[in-house]
Amino acid sequence: MRRTSIQASVIAAATCIIALVPVAAGGVDDEASAIFGVKLPAGYRDWRVISVAHEAGKLNDLRAILGNDVAMRAFREGTRPFPDGAIIARLAWQYVPSAENDAVFGQAQSFVAGPATNVQLSVKDSGRYADTGGWGFGQFEDGRPNRDEALLKTCFPCHARLPRTDDFVFTHYAP
Amino acid sequence: MRRTSIQASVIAAATCIIALVPVAAGGVDDEASAIFGVKLPAGYRDWRVISVAHEAGKLNDLRAILGNDVAMRAFREGTRPFPDGAIIARLAWQYVPSAENDAVFGQAQSFVAGPATNVQLSVKDSGRYADTGGWGFGQFEDGRPNRDEALLKTCFPCHARLPRTDDFVFTHYAP
Repeated sequence: MRRTSIQASVIAAATCIIALVPVAAGGVDDEASAIFGVKLPAGYRDWRVISVAHEAGKLNDLRAILGNDVAMRAFREGTRPFPDGAIIARLAWQYVPSAENDAVFGQAQSFVAGPATNVQLSVKDSGRYADTGGWGFGQFEDGRPNRDEALLKTCFPCHARLPRTDDFVFTHYAP
Repeated sequence: MRRTSIQASVIAAATCIIALVPVAAGGVDDEASAIFGVKLPAGYRDWRVISVAHEAGKLNDLRAILGNDVAMRAFREGTRPFPDGAIIARLAWQYVPSAENDAVFGQAQSFVAGPATNVQLSVKDSGRYADTGGWGFGQFEDGRPNRDEALLKTCFPCHARLPRTDDFVFTHYAP
């Protein structure tokens, strides 16, 4: 019985350490983004739509910006700053003309979502991410986190150029 | 008691007639689209994303194509034709440049959702809509159905130009 108890304690301690790894900034959990330790939440693809956008230029994508329940409520009620727990997921796909649609319409006018490019997450945790406006960031390609610290370091300086009244968030709710 | 029973029957019959009105093609229910009698389902704004698109030209919009649970399952499993009960909701907003975003990026590249234009619905009911490929159509502005029969008559001839393997649906699922 004593051995079983020790084993249980070891397992519990190991579980605790595993659970803490993604929380540690700069942790080595390869399921989480560099620097911020942000993971892709289960079911994010089923979240509700905040808005949509097209970024031209080098990005050249179509994007859907989705929110978890905390984020959606804040967007709809106009709550700023966003409460802890809010997560915004920006899904992007290559911006491609649709020959099929254009043939139906009789002119070149239709641009649709091609292959997925990446998913970017903004996670609000005012304590954990106090140095970056309360937001932690992550980028994921094919469901895998981007571990490039140099890339992740570009997130907040860009968001920080937005008005403080937007709480460092680009997207506005599309009713 | 007898009077109560008759009253109940009258109320039940009236309820039944009211419930049937939107089903009747060309019904005068002003909550429903012309010709097809399609209504805007409660909660459609919270449905999941099938894909996103940009229509240039005269439409000049950004759009999110959402699906109810039946439609989402069919898109994800590749089920064609779509089963009865599938509803596809196409939300569109004016395609507008974002001066705020462009200032952050240092170049003109960002196009976002402006004011909503309209919502179009495709409702699968292979019996009720047998004459139009099993699909009923509706267009809604500010939550109100468009009652213009001439407009609604343009829906199916356009969808009918798509390959039959798409079951008259423009949108493909964006993973």
